[in-house]
Amino acid sequence: MTELHTGSAAGARFIGDLRDALPPDRVVTRPETLEGLSRDKAHVLEPGRALVGAFPTSAAEVSTVLQLATEHRIPVVPRGAGSGLAGGANAVDGCVILSTLRMDRIVEINTDDMIAVVGPGVINAKLSAEVAKRGLMYAPDPSSFEISSIGGNLATNAGGLRCVKYGVTREATLGLEVVLADGAILRTGRRSVKGVAGYDLVSLFVGSEGTLGVITEATLRLRPSPLPAGTLLASFPSLADAAKAVASMPSVTPSVLELMDQTTIRAVEEWQHLGLDIGSAAMLIARSDTADFGRAELDAVEKACQASGATVIHRSIDALESEGLMGARRAALPALERLGITLLEDVAVPRGRVVDLVQAVVRIAEEHDIRIGTFGHVGDGNLHPTLVIPRGDLAAQGRAMQAAEAIAAAALSLGGTLTGEHGIGTLKRHQLAGEIGPDGLRASWAIKNALDPLGIMNPGKVLPPRQAIPD
Amino acid sequence: MTELHTGSAAGARFIGDLRDALPPDRVVTRPETLEGLSRDKAHVLEPGRALVGAFPTSAAEVSTVLQLATEHRIPVVPRGAGSGLAGGANAVDGCVILSTLRMDRIVEINTDDMIAVVGPGVINAKLSAEVAKRGLMYAPDPSSFEISSIGGNLATNAGGLRCVKYGVTREATLGLEVVLADGAILRTGRRSVKGVAGYDLVSLFVGSEGTLGVITEATLRLRPSPLPAGTLLASFPSLADAAKAVASMPSVTPSVLELMDQTTIRAVEEWQHLGLDIGSAAMLIARSDTADFGRAELDAVEKACQASGATVIHRSIDALESEGLMGARRAALPALERLGITLLEDVAVPRGRVVDLVQAVVRIAEEHDIRIGTFGHVGDGNLHPTLVIPRGDLAAQGRAMQAAEAIAAAALSLGGTLTGEHGIGTLKRHQLAGEIGPDGLRASWAIKNALDPLGIMNPGKVLPPRQAIPD
Repeated sequence: MTELHTGSAAGARFIGDLRDALPPDRVVTRPETLEGLSRDKAHVLEPGRALVGAFPTSAAEVSTVLQLATEHRIPVVPRGAGSGLAGGANAVDGCVILSTLRMDRIVEINTDDMIAVVGPGVINAKLSAEVAKRGLMYAPDPSSFEISSIGGNLATNAGGLRCVKYGVTREATLGLEVVLADGAILRTGRRSVKGVAGYDLVSLFVGSEGTLGVITEATLRLRPSPLPAGTLLASFPSLADAAKAVASMPSVTPSVLELMDQTTIRAVEEWQHLGLDIGSAAMLIARSDTADFGRAELDAVEKACQASGATVIHRSIDALESEGLMGARRAALPALERLGITLLEDVAVPRGRVVDLVQAVVRIAEEHDIRIGTFGHVGDGNLHPTLVIPRGDLAAQGRAMQAAEAIAAAALSLGGTLTGEHGIGTLKRHQLAGEIGPDGLRASWAIKNALDPLGIMNPGKVLPPRQAIPD
Repeated sequence: MTELHTGSAAGARFIGDLRDALPPDRVVTRPETLEGLSRDKAHVLEPGRALVGAFPTSAAEVSTVLQLATEHRIPVVPRGAGSGLAGGANAVDGCVILSTLRMDRIVEINTDDMIAVVGPGVINAKLSAEVAKRGLMYAPDPSSFEISSIGGNLATNAGGLRCVKYGVTREATLGLEVVLADGAILRTGRRSVKGVAGYDLVSLFVGSEGTLGVITEATLRLRPSPLPAGTLLASFPSLADAAKAVASMPSVTPSVLELMDQTTIRAVEEWQHLGLDIGSAAMLIARSDTADFGRAELDAVEKACQASGATVIHRSIDALESEGLMGARRAALPALERLGITLLEDVAVPRGRVVDLVQAVVRIAEEHDIRIGTFGHVGDGNLHPTLVIPRGDLAAQGRAMQAAEAIAAAALSLGGTLTGEHGIGTLKRHQLAGEIGPDGLRASWAIKNALDPLGIMNPGKVLPPRQAIPD
C-alpha cells in the first residue's frame, strides 16, 4: 500500500482544496462534530482521529472528495447512520469521514416494476413506510431499521428478522451507482430482477464495508406486501430443546423465526414489564404470513415445538399482540445494553448445528465467567450471543474478548461464519483468515488492489494486512 | 495480456507434460473427440480449434492442468455438459478443453442443514431427484435441467422456471471450491445460509463463465419441497394483452409464470399434438404452490387475466395434467429448432416493461423479415425471443443477427439486460459495453487481471478486448 498522508501540513492542504471545491456547508472540522462522526456502535473499540468530515449531496460531490483524497493520499472512511456494530465506520487517523446521510432522496418508487431507486442516506424505516403505502415491501429489516441507512445496510449486507424467508440486502439489490477510489462514477446492475451480463459487481460492492468505493444510489427490489401474519410464542425448559425444535422443522419456512435465551428474556422483562415468563430457559417466536394467518405453517411449527418439549405455546392472529411479541424481541439488545458494555457476537451456522452452537456458547460463558445473553435469527442459524461486561471492569473486558474469540472459533468449526450480518470491520479483522484462509485473503487483496490501488478506501477495515497472510 | 502459445511445438510440449502428470484416461487428443467437445448449443457460432481435452476427476487434477497451462501459456476452456447458448464453452484455437463432467459425485445431502455438496459434473436433474426423495428441493431449474450440469449452471448463473419465486443459481449457492488460474485451490463461502465475512467471492465466480477459475465443488442451499401446485393456463387475443396481464398482477408471486406467443404455440402443437389452441395469440401458464393448490393466488392471477382480455382460462390441480402443460412450455425451444437454425435471445426487463418489450420484438420481426417465436419467464421479465433462420439461408442469417442486436438494444432502453440467464459468452461480447459501460468494463478487466494475470482462463469470452474500451 502507498504511504497515506496523515500529517498536519498535507491535511491542511487537503482541507483547503476540499473547501475550494465544495459549497461551504459540505465540509466540517469542528473537533466536537468530528468526534461524533468518528465511531459506530462497536462500543469496545477506540476509533482513530479524523482530519475532516465531508457531507456530499450528490455522486458528483462524492467524486470530488475521492479525487482530492486520491490526489492528496488521504484515507476515506465512508459512513452511513453509524449504527454498525463492527467498527467499520470508525475513523482512522488523518481520514476524511465521508457521510452519505445528505444523499437521502427516494428518487423513484415504481409499483409496476416493483423497484425503488434511493440515495444511500435514506433511512430503512422511511423507505419501508413509503413502499408499504403502495402495497409493497422492502424486505431487509435489520433490528436497527428505524435508525440505519440504506447505504449502511448495503455496505454491511445487512440481514434482519424477515430475511429467513425473503433474503438479505444482497438479494434485494438490483443495481448500484458507486464512486470508485479514483472518482470514477460506476453504474452497475440493472432494473430487471434477472441479469447475468458480465461479472456480478453489485454483489462485490454489497457487503464490502466501504473498502472498494462509495455507494451513491441503489436500485432495490420490492416484493408484494405479505399477507397478515400469525405469531407463535413457545417457551422451553432448556435452551437446547428450543434449538432442537428449530432443527426439527426443515419443511417449513416461517417469515420470522427468532430465539431468546433466559438472560435475554429477563433483561427485557426487567426493563419493559411485558409479562414474559422469566422462568423459561428459552423462547422461540415464529411468524407465518402464508394464507389464513399462516395456520398450516404454524401448526407444523407448534408440532415441532411440542415434540421438542415446549412447555407453553401461545398463538395470536391479533396484529397488535403480534407486534408486542416482536417488540419484545426487538428490545433484546437495548435491554442487555442496560446491564453493561455489550460485545455483540454475530455468528451463523447451518440450521442443523444450532443446538451445538448454543451449547458451546453456554460452555464458553461458564469457562470465561462472562454473562452472555443469546438471541437472534435462529431460523437461518444466525445468533447474537451478547457478552455483557460490567462497566469499568477491565478484567471482565479481557475475558469477554477471549470468550468472543472462542464463540467465533466454535461457529467456524460447525461450518459457519464469524459474522452473519454485521460485518468484519475492525472488530473481527484479525479473525478473517481463520474463515477465508490464505488463498481467500490473497484473492480478496488482489481485488482490493485492482479497484483501490492506492489503498485510500477505509483502510484497516475488513482485510488484515497483506504482509500478515500466511504462506 | 501475455501472448498465449497456440503453436504446435509449444502445444506438443504441453500435451506431453499433461500425459506425464495425469493418469492416461484423463487426456484426449483424437480429432473427432475434440470436435465434439469444442462447441455448445449456440448454433450460429463457429468454435476455434482445440489442442487437447482434459477430464480431471478431482480439484487436485484440475490444479495440475491449470499449473501446466500457466507454465506453458495455454488457454483453458472449462466445459460442463455443453448445453450453453452463448458460446461460452466453445473452443478457442490451441486451447485445452477442461471438462468437469467426471467430477460428478454428490458428496453430501444434509437434510438437517438443508444443503447439498456436489461436484460440478452432477447433472441438475439427478441432484433434484435425489433431494426430492428427502422432501427437499434444489430450486434452480433451467429448461436444460435434464442435460445440464451444476458446474455449467454455476458458470452461467442459470435461471429457470421456478426462479421467479425461489431465486436463481446465485441465490442457491452458499460455498464454492474454485481452482484459480495459477492452480491455487480456493474455498470460499460457507455452509450457513447467511454470512458476510469478507468480499462475496462466491457471487463473483458464479456467472463468470469460466473466465476467473474452475469450480470444482459447490455447497448448495436446499429448500423444503413445495406444496402441491395448481396450474392455470390463459389464452389471449393479443400478445400485448398477455403482457398487460402480467404487469397488472404485482401483488402475487406465482411459483411459475410463463409466456408463449402464437409462433411458439403453433410450433409446439405441430410437433407434439397436445391440443393447444393455435388460434390464440398468446398463452400464459401460471402455477402456485401455496396452500390449497394455490387457490387464492391463482384466483388473483385469473382475475388479472380476465381483466386483460383472456378468452379461455383453464385451471387444473391434477398433477399429471399440470405436468402436461409444463411440458408444452418446455417443448418450446426444441419445437422451434425443428423449423430452422435458431438464435435464442435472452433479454430481461423490469416486469412493468414487458408490454413494451413484446411489442418491440413484433416490430423488429417485421422490420427484419425474420420469424421470431417468443416465450419465457415473463414473471421476472425474462423472455426468449427465438429467431428462426431457414437452413442454408445466409441472407436470413444476416438479417437475424441484426434483429438480435435490435432486440438487445430495446431491452437496454427499457432498463433491462442483454442476458437474463444464458450469459455473454462470445455471442454477446461485442454488446457488453452497451450494458455495463466503459467504467464497468474497466472495473471488470481490473478484476479479471487480478485473478488471472496471464489471461489463460477462457480468453475471448464475456469481456471485450481491453483495447476496445472507449475512453
